[in-house]
Amino acid sequence: MRQHNLSRVLHALADEGALSRAEVAGRIGLTRAAVSTLVDELLRGGLLSERGPGRSGSVGRPGSQLVLADQGPCGFGAEIGVDHLTVCAMDLRGAVRARIDHRMGPGGHEPGAVLAELTGLLERLAAEAATHRLWPAGLAVAVPGLVARGTATVTRAPNLGWREVDLAPLLPSGQGPLTVDNEANFGALAELWEERGAAGNGSFVHVSARIGIGAAIVVDGAVLRGAHGFAGELGHVPVRPGGPPCPCGARGCLETYAGEAALLRAAGLAPGTEPGGRTGELAERCAARDAVALRAVRQAGSALGIALSGAVNLLDPHQVVIGGSLAELSPWLLPPVRRELARRTMLTAGGRTTATPVTGSLIGPAGPLLGAARSAVRGALDTPARLLTAPGGGAML
Amino acid sequence: MRQHNLSRVLHALADEGALSRAEVAGRIGLTRAAVSTLVDELLRGGLLSERGPGRSGSVGRPGSQLVLADQGPCGFGAEIGVDHLTVCAMDLRGAVRARIDHRMGPGGHEPGAVLAELTGLLERLAAEAATHRLWPAGLAVAVPGLVARGTATVTRAPNLGWREVDLAPLLPSGQGPLTVDNEANFGALAELWEERGAAGNGSFVHVSARIGIGAAIVVDGAVLRGAHGFAGELGHVPVRPGGPPCPCGARGCLETYAGEAALLRAAGLAPGTEPGGRTGELAERCAARDAVALRAVRQAGSALGIALSGAVNLLDPHQVVIGGSLAELSPWLLPPVRRELARRTMLTAGGRTTATPVTGSLIGPAGPLLGAARSAVRGALDTPARLLTAPGGGAML
Repeated sequence: MRQHNLSRVLHALADEGALSRAEVAGRIGLTRAAVSTLVDELLRGGLLSERGPGRSGSVGRPGSQLVLADQGPCGFGAEIGVDHLTVCAMDLRGAVRARIDHRMGPGGHEPGAVLAELTGLLERLAAEAATHRLWPAGLAVAVPGLVARGTATVTRAPNLGWREVDLAPLLPSGQGPLTVDNEANFGALAELWEERGAAGNGSFVHVSARIGIGAAIVVDGAVLRGAHGFAGELGHVPVRPGGPPCPCGARGCLETYAGEAALLRAAGLAPGTEPGGRTGELAERCAARDAVALRAVRQAGSALGIALSGAVNLLDPHQVVIGGSLAELSPWLLPPVRRELARRTMLTAGGRTTATPVTGSLIGPAGPLLGAARSAVRGALDTPARLLTAPGGGAML
Repeated sequence: MRQHNLSRVLHALADEGALSRAEVAGRIGLTRAAVSTLVDELLRGGLLSERGPGRSGSVGRPGSQLVLADQGPCGFGAEIGVDHLTVCAMDLRGAVRARIDHRMGPGGHEPGAVLAELTGLLERLAAEAATHRLWPAGLAVAVPGLVARGTATVTRAPNLGWREVDLAPLLPSGQGPLTVDNEANFGALAELWEERGAAGNGSFVHVSARIGIGAAIVVDGAVLRGAHGFAGELGHVPVRPGGPPCPCGARGCLETYAGEAALLRAAGLAPGTEPGGRTGELAERCAARDAVALRAVRQAGSALGIALSGAVNLLDPHQVVIGGSLAELSPWLLPPVRRELARRTMLTAGGRTTATPVTGSLIGPAGPLLGAARSAVRGALDTPARLLTAPGGGAML
């Protein structure tokens, strides 16, 4: 129970930034005295610091503001992409304090080699974090594939050619608990945590496009994972059942119209050897009013709108957020998406027909990485006992 | 807290049928002594009865079995259909003790007239229930339309021609709290409560076809309602975006291929003046190997499979259950549905590709009515104080 209350104090400060003891007490529904005891323990453990009127005077004066520490435990986030590996360290306040980007050559996604590379990056990240007096209290890894619910096993990642790869034995131990999840889910969580306003009150569909197209379905602030952990496969929703063949084996999936390869091909841009890098070029052509590029994006938007019409009819979310690389194309992509939704969804309110709002993500392509790091931070805040006694915390001295 | 514990005793018995005091204690995690006090109060209030070894001897002997009373409070369920009104009374044990079916003439769905008719039926039902010493402790009404979340207002019911109809002022008061919900949601809850085995562990998509095609999405045992209460509109998921026009204004919605009117037309059966009554005839023709009927059902199954592929890719349910009138066509409808799902969904498990199981509902067309009545019963079990002091209960004497 005490652990639970310590955790609630930490989460209150993570959500609000800075609070007085009285404000913490009000938020979590404990007495001022109980909160003072908890706060003292967290201050001694180095997880909080104090600023404002009380800072240099008597600790605990009413006006003093508490904030989470910017030293000590932090969350490590990692993203495995088709063409890149990225890792970052986020402190308890949510600031990214170190980040390493690594570009991978074409081909060669053998799991052992990729994870050895990632392990090296994480060790470099730990060394860099240590110079800021930060140590990893948890690691979360975003992958472009399906992850079996509650495990670290990638069941299937078609764009990496992975099947049934358990990441746990291939990653460094000693960086705290490991979480592995689909990049779309972490992208949606970033949207929820970093941009709460944009996410409405927390029921939305978050489209996360890279090479493929995934989505996360957030219902009342939680990701809907599905029976096996495979929910959100928007890229394989049928758009035209007799349409072009998809690598998944079906025909006319959304990815065959709006996946990166299809989109670049329709725009007359060769997919090339560097996947992921050419959406910006496409956006430039659209901005320059290139007719072929505009038509390609319009058609992709239309296909996306048809697939999303199915999702909105089924789920009735407050909002649809387009993230990932498609977000760069928002000015040209969103109008046809909205047109299809207005035409094909049953939503009515107060007798007037209003379509579900569609917006581009403001976070951009860093979403999955930030969501992963934030998830590691939040996991750490759930278990204060671990933070108070762990290496480098200087706790309980 | 005591009310909450009384309610837990009642729900334990509703779930299990008959339990000894010790078994109740084990299930709800209270001491034997605490449970005995609660049980005594419920026995005095007439909400439980006792049978088995202890029945005629000393009350409370270890071996005696407790069951919910089959007299006293009951739940009233009602269903408003395009061509019928049905009402029933379900006792606390889940048995339907009275039911009245009323066939409506063609046309004429003016809300005031329909609800006056329904009020008359509910009054007759109350009179019949009284002859079994049952009184209504709650009323739940299933409607073929969208109901605004948390209200008794039908926002839109296209097949009735209703928009923004608040049922509360038009129904009898004095039958306990009123709940109004979409028939598909009540149908799914019936599947969950009456046929738990069939529903897997409680995450499934339940298709509920009548004139239109609705669905309920059940996640971990709860209906996903959506931001406005409009989730589950499977009938308007696009199957072929340029397909036939749908009364909703879009093109190629599932209903234009597998809705009752489309299905009967494709089978060469005129939709006729009595909607809802001809699926049985179609099933007979299929059983007699009528080629036109078989092709019509196969095409409808294919369209249903395409729309469900989208739903399964997005939601990853344990199972899909086909209820409502389409359940009658299961032998001919399910093979094409399964074929499309096998082709178009990404689900893999243990390296083998396995499609999400699809089954026909065993409850049949009574699902929404039974789900509504059961919902009224469960609502009553949530508030034992009301049951212990209400008319006819003979409580606290």
